[in-house]
Amino acid sequence: MRVILNSRHADHAAPGEFEAGAVIPCHEAPGRCGAIRGALEAAGGFTFEDAAQNEGCVAAVHHPAYVAYLRGASAEARHAKGGGLNSFWPTVFPFGPNPRARGAHALRGTYCFDVYTPILPGTFGAALGGASAAFRAAELVAAGAEKQVYVLTRPPGHHAEHDRCGGYCYFNNAAVAAQHLSRLGKVAVLDLDVHHGNGTQHIFYDRADVLTVSVHGDPAGLYPFFSGFADETGTGAGLGANVNVPLPPGTGPHEYRPALARALDAVARFRPEFLVLAFGADTHEADPIGGLKLPTGFFGEMGAAVRGLGLPTVIVQEGGYDLGALGASAVALLGGFEAR
Amino acid sequence: MRVILNSRHADHAAPGEFEAGAVIPCHEAPGRCGAIRGALEAAGGFTFEDAAQNEGCVAAVHHPAYVAYLRGASAEARHAKGGGLNSFWPTVFPFGPNPRARGAHALRGTYCFDVYTPILPGTFGAALGGASAAFRAAELVAAGAEKQVYVLTRPPGHHAEHDRCGGYCYFNNAAVAAQHLSRLGKVAVLDLDVHHGNGTQHIFYDRADVLTVSVHGDPAGLYPFFSGFADETGTGAGLGANVNVPLPPGTGPHEYRPALARALDAVARFRPEFLVLAFGADTHEADPIGGLKLPTGFFGEMGAAVRGLGLPTVIVQEGGYDLGALGASAVALLGGFEAR
Repeated sequence: MRVILNSRHADHAAPGEFEAGAVIPCHEAPGRCGAIRGALEAAGGFTFEDAAQNEGCVAAVHHPAYVAYLRGASAEARHAKGGGLNSFWPTVFPFGPNPRARGAHALRGTYCFDVYTPILPGTFGAALGGASAAFRAAELVAAGAEKQVYVLTRPPGHHAEHDRCGGYCYFNNAAVAAQHLSRLGKVAVLDLDVHHGNGTQHIFYDRADVLTVSVHGDPAGLYPFFSGFADETGTGAGLGANVNVPLPPGTGPHEYRPALARALDAVARFRPEFLVLAFGADTHEADPIGGLKLPTGFFGEMGAAVRGLGLPTVIVQEGGYDLGALGASAVALLGGFEAR
Repeated sequence: MRVILNSRHADHAAPGEFEAGAVIPCHEAPGRCGAIRGALEAAGGFTFEDAAQNEGCVAAVHHPAYVAYLRGASAEARHAKGGGLNSFWPTVFPFGPNPRARGAHALRGTYCFDVYTPILPGTFGAALGGASAAFRAAELVAAGAEKQVYVLTRPPGHHAEHDRCGGYCYFNNAAVAAQHLSRLGKVAVLDLDVHHGNGTQHIFYDRADVLTVSVHGDPAGLYPFFSGFADETGTGAGLGANVNVPLPPGTGPHEYRPALARALDAVARFRPEFLVLAFGADTHEADPIGGLKLPTGFFGEMGAAVRGLGLPTVIVQEGGYDLGALGASAVALLGGFEAR
C-alpha cells in the first residue's frame, strides 16, 4: 500500500498538556509517526512518499482568516520565549460574536476552542504538511492511480473546524481529502477515532454530497463533549447526511461490531464513489485517554469490514496515543484492508 | 466607614493558576482580604460587619441556569479529587450556540470563558457571600443609613457575566449592588480596576438607567482582551451609557489623572443618584499583573476625586494582587474618600 508521509510533522511538538490543573507531557507527540512508520516497515508491503507542501490545499475547507491567523501565530510564536503573556496556549475564550478581539490572547481564544491546541513555531508548517499529504492521497485515489492510500501524519485533523483549531488539530486533513474527492462524486467520511470528529461533521453538516459517519465514545463523558450525539443528523440539504454512533466507556469488540456494521450500512446506503476513513487507534484497549477496549487483533477485522465497502479509499491517520499499540493497530488495520 | 465583610471568602482558594503553559500559584488568594482588613484595622476608623448569605440577591443580575450550575458544580467539586477528568478547571469551550453541551466538561466551558476561574467546593458559598455583602451595602446606602459603605470581599466580581464566570469572578458584586440601587434611581458604576469590567459593562449594556464607566489598561494587551475598547458605548436604550477609557501599559499618575477626570465628568453629566465604585488596587505600581504605575499615595487622590461627585456610594473591592500594596492602597483610597 502506498503511504503518503507528512515530512514536517515533527516541527510541531507541544511542550506539555494542561490536565486537571497540572501540566503533563503531551499525548500527541512526534514519536507517534515514528512508531507507526517503524511498524509498517517491519511488516513490509508499504511504499513511502513525502508530500510536498501545498499552500492552496486548505482553502476549500478552512476560512481564509483562520489560515492567515494560523500562519501568523506560528511565525509570532518564534519570538515567544516561554513565560509571561507570550505563551503558546489560549487562555481566554471570547464568547458569542466577537468583533472586538484584537489582542493576541483574544485571537488565540477566538480561533481555538480548548486548551489542548497550542500554536508553536512549527505548527503551521506541520499542519499544512498533513493537509498536503491528505490532498496528495486524494489526488492519487481520484485519478484511479491507487485503490487505497494511507496518510501517515500528525497532528491529527478531525477536530479542526472551518475556522477553529482544537483537540490537537489545526487543519482538517480528512475534510481536505473529502472535499477534493467530492469534486468527482459523492463522498463518505467514516470516522473511527475514539473521539467524535466534530470538525469534519460541522464542515459538511449542510452538504448532501458528503456523508459524515462517526463511531466514537459517548461525548457526554468524552472529548469533545459538545458534539457527537446520536441526534445530530445534519441540516438543510445535509439533513440525514450525518450519522453519529456514540458508545459507552469500556466498549469492547462485542458491542463495537454492531456499531461498526450500522456505520458501514449507512455508508453503503449513501452509495458514495469515494470513502475517506479517519482512523484513530485510540479505540485500542491500551490507549491512555480513549476508554474503549478493542484488542490489536480487532483492527484487522475493522480494516476488512471497511474494505468490504469496495470503495476507493483515502485512509487518514487521526489519534492513538499508546506508542506500543499504535503501530501494531495501524499494521492490523491496513493489513485487514489489503487482505483478499 | 462601615465595612461589610464576606465571611465566606476563604472557602474559595484556587490551588493554582494556568499561565504560559505552567501552573503557578493563584494571584487571587484568600490572603488578599486579610491584608486589607489588617491595614484598615491598623489605620482605624472602620467598623466591620459580616453579611449573612442572601440566596436571592443574585437573581436580578444572573441567569437562573447559571446560578444553578454554579451551585451544582461547587457541590460536585467536593467529589473531585484532583486528577483525571474530574478537575476544577474548564478545558473545552463550546463555541456559538451550544444546546448539545451535556457532559460536565462542556458545561464548564459553556458557563466560563477562561482558564482562570476554577470551580472548587467552596466557590458557590464564597461567591454568594460577596454578592450578599454587596447587596447589604446597597441596602444601607439605599436607605440613607450610610453615605459610603465599603465591601471587603473576594473573589472579585466585575468580570462575571450574566451567565458566565471568568477572570477569577463568579457573581458580579458591583452589578448586584447597582441593580438594587437602580430600583430607587439612576446609578453610575465607575470601575477603576486595572482590568476592564466586561461583565458589568455587558450586564447593563442596553440600560439607560445604569451608566457604566471604566478606566483600565488597554485590552489590546491586557486581560480580558475582548472588551473594554473605547468605541464600546452601549446599545439600544443604553447607547451612550457606557464609557471606556483604555490606558497604555506603564501609565502613571500624570496620564491617569486626566483619564479619571474624563470618567468622573461622564458620571457627573449622567446625574445619577447613586454610585458604585468597583475598586481594584491592581493599578498599583507593585502589582504583579496590572502593568500601570500608580504609587500608593495616588489612591488618596483617587478617593478624594471620586468623593467629589458627592454621591451616596457603595465601594466594592475588585482586584489587586500585591499583598504589600493592597492594604495600603485601600486605606489610602478610603481615607481620601472620607477626608473632609
